[in-house]
Amino acid sequence: MKNIIVGQSGGPTAVINASLYGVAKAALESEKFNNVYGMLNGIEGFSNDRIMNLADISDEELEALRTTPGAYLGSCRYKLPEDLDDKFYPHIFKQFEKYDISSFLYIGGNDSMDTVSKLSKYAEKINSKICFIGIPKTIDNDLTLTDHTPGFGSAAKFAASIVKEIGRDTEVYDKNTVTIIEIMGRNAGWLTAATVLARQTKDDNPVLIYLPETNFDEEEFLKSLTENFKHKKQLIVCVSEGIHNDDGTFICEKTADMIIDNFGHKSMNGCAKYLENLVKERLGVKVRSVELNVSQRCAAEYLSETDVNEAEASGRFAVTAALAEKTGCMIACFRKDQDIYEAAYGTVDVNEVCNKEKCVPLYWITDNNTNISQEFINYALPLIQGSVDIPKKNGLPYFAYRK
Amino acid sequence: MKNIIVGQSGGPTAVINASLYGVAKAALESEKFNNVYGMLNGIEGFSNDRIMNLADISDEELEALRTTPGAYLGSCRYKLPEDLDDKFYPHIFKQFEKYDISSFLYIGGNDSMDTVSKLSKYAEKINSKICFIGIPKTIDNDLTLTDHTPGFGSAAKFAASIVKEIGRDTEVYDKNTVTIIEIMGRNAGWLTAATVLARQTKDDNPVLIYLPETNFDEEEFLKSLTENFKHKKQLIVCVSEGIHNDDGTFICEKTADMIIDNFGHKSMNGCAKYLENLVKERLGVKVRSVELNVSQRCAAEYLSETDVNEAEASGRFAVTAALAEKTGCMIACFRKDQDIYEAAYGTVDVNEVCNKEKCVPLYWITDNNTNISQEFINYALPLIQGSVDIPKKNGLPYFAYRK
Repeated sequence: MKNIIVGQSGGPTAVINASLYGVAKAALESEKFNNVYGMLNGIEGFSNDRIMNLADISDEELEALRTTPGAYLGSCRYKLPEDLDDKFYPHIFKQFEKYDISSFLYIGGNDSMDTVSKLSKYAEKINSKICFIGIPKTIDNDLTLTDHTPGFGSAAKFAASIVKEIGRDTEVYDKNTVTIIEIMGRNAGWLTAATVLARQTKDDNPVLIYLPETNFDEEEFLKSLTENFKHKKQLIVCVSEGIHNDDGTFICEKTADMIIDNFGHKSMNGCAKYLENLVKERLGVKVRSVELNVSQRCAAEYLSETDVNEAEASGRFAVTAALAEKTGCMIACFRKDQDIYEAAYGTVDVNEVCNKEKCVPLYWITDNNTNISQEFINYALPLIQGSVDIPKKNGLPYFAYRK
Repeated sequence: MKNIIVGQSGGPTAVINASLYGVAKAALESEKFNNVYGMLNGIEGFSNDRIMNLADISDEELEALRTTPGAYLGSCRYKLPEDLDDKFYPHIFKQFEKYDISSFLYIGGNDSMDTVSKLSKYAEKINSKICFIGIPKTIDNDLTLTDHTPGFGSAAKFAASIVKEIGRDTEVYDKNTVTIIEIMGRNAGWLTAATVLARQTKDDNPVLIYLPETNFDEEEFLKSLTENFKHKKQLIVCVSEGIHNDDGTFICEKTADMIIDNFGHKSMNGCAKYLENLVKERLGVKVRSVELNVSQRCAAEYLSETDVNEAEASGRFAVTAALAEKTGCMIACFRKDQDIYEAAYGTVDVNEVCNKEKCVPLYWITDNNTNISQEFINYALPLIQGSVDIPKKNGLPYFAYRK
């Protein structure tokens, strides 16, 4: 019997630990591994011998882990060398040998799937039998070949709930106001689209929703606000952080300094603030901008039960796939039925997933790029269903902490 | 039998509607009033005949109201004239006569208590028998003569929970980072102080907490961060929006334009952003700033059951006080016992409450003005206890909407 190792990578979500929980439970229960290891801070930590034994987590901590946001094992943003002849690869495979690893599971988004892809390619090259399997997670929901990704349902539920709550808040004063809510999403607007679920009645807020899949026109935006003021006083507008003009200039570039991360992605925020000033200046009404910020990926009180269950199931299924000696693959989620929602799991080629982004289909973006279609609602609604009881201590959520 | 009227005023909270629910239920059940009216948009709307009959709300809507954030009746920020000879007073008392009002209940904070105070003074002047009673609400917890205010418990629970969640989120990467979280509170730091409850272990985040009750020194702040980096990598700092230098300059004044409201209050935000840039420049570490923003006063998923129950009880007690013909008073909340928390209600002189602010006692602010004492924790913990089941539709909270 050999050992299995699991890591977490990229930005955390509210359910990435539920996947870790699924892996830990399934791997420990299977009794097919000598040890179930966790990499600390992903591949970067593992390359420096930073690991832990998941059997050492107490039962109470393990149960708390299922609803703990963040990444229990720690995460990293570490891009593996493109060149498979780079010295990194022999080093990391020596590490695998050192810890007698037969299965490598990696929970993450596009960039983490790039890691799985490269490791599996190198394994093929050197005829290694180690299995490399990706477990999807991202609030962005932008992975291809899977119906959706664990992490999206809870983030969507958070975004829609908060917009709904802010809707009640904005409507208290009897005057014209605009509230602009900025939501995560550089190139894919899934999470912003989910704010359509906040509408309790037909003409409810948000009245305008802008995704990065289409071009944003400031003048059209101002016109749409003026049009909406004819029949509604308090307007909420939801925008993806990545909205851009037709020449590709990000709206946030007009205010903020950009930071470029290790994967070459621009870190962007500030488009809501820019639009706040624009609306204030041009329409002269009271405007507020709200950045939903990191709570989108870590708000435990808004966990979707469906999402938590699917995150755990993806982790469990990855162990099953490892035992079946699958490699170079990612766990994907499918709908068994078009009418009654039920998830099924399978594996897809990780090389077809990594470094690609699945965007919201353009035909789901309606009303001159300001609204979201019923098809999206039908797609997203099952993913936010159910609430989760979080362990509490002293009236506050109790989270698992790595010692 | 005469009529009772209730209004909501000032900034909304997550439980101001629970107080309205308490008033509506108690007044309707008492059968001592011909009609139970609600002012739409407070005294301002009432002066223009904008009212509704609360008996018209369906049972389902009334139950949903108890956990609906915002102000169901609409709110206003309307400052009554200082001069009791102003023509506003005969006008508004003519309105009371027109609608045959015997009791006027007003749910709000300091400024709304100013309205209750002035109306009751004018009533005394003209020998009117109408009762004027204030029902406290404010997330700021800054009203005098009451142990605490409805709205604070839920906001405190929200702030502490979010800080705790962000704590899990910040700890995923193995590098030095600072996260600065800006919390509402111009002059009173109760809500910011409540973030101390987020600590699950002794050296847990937030490592630094700054209230507006003390002066903020930028150099001392940077020194404290450097000191904390010696034993912790990811630091969370919680600051009140109203923190200021020793010459009284607000930190937010250094970046943002100030807006002055009808009551002469400066609207302030941006201190976290300012500090983000300061830390980035001076310490060269990764920094993020987060404004908790309006969700502090409207996040329904973080409702404290204790707070909701007390908000309702305050509303009910106000009806009892009205039936006992009390006037010029505010409902206050006391602790029956120092050891086992149980709330009791009474009335206090509204003239002693209005336009005053209760701040956090300086002896509860410790460690060179960067920490909060155990006494505060003992005070605040009972107020955040218990969760509330919110009615759900389609996986999202269902809120009461005024037709």
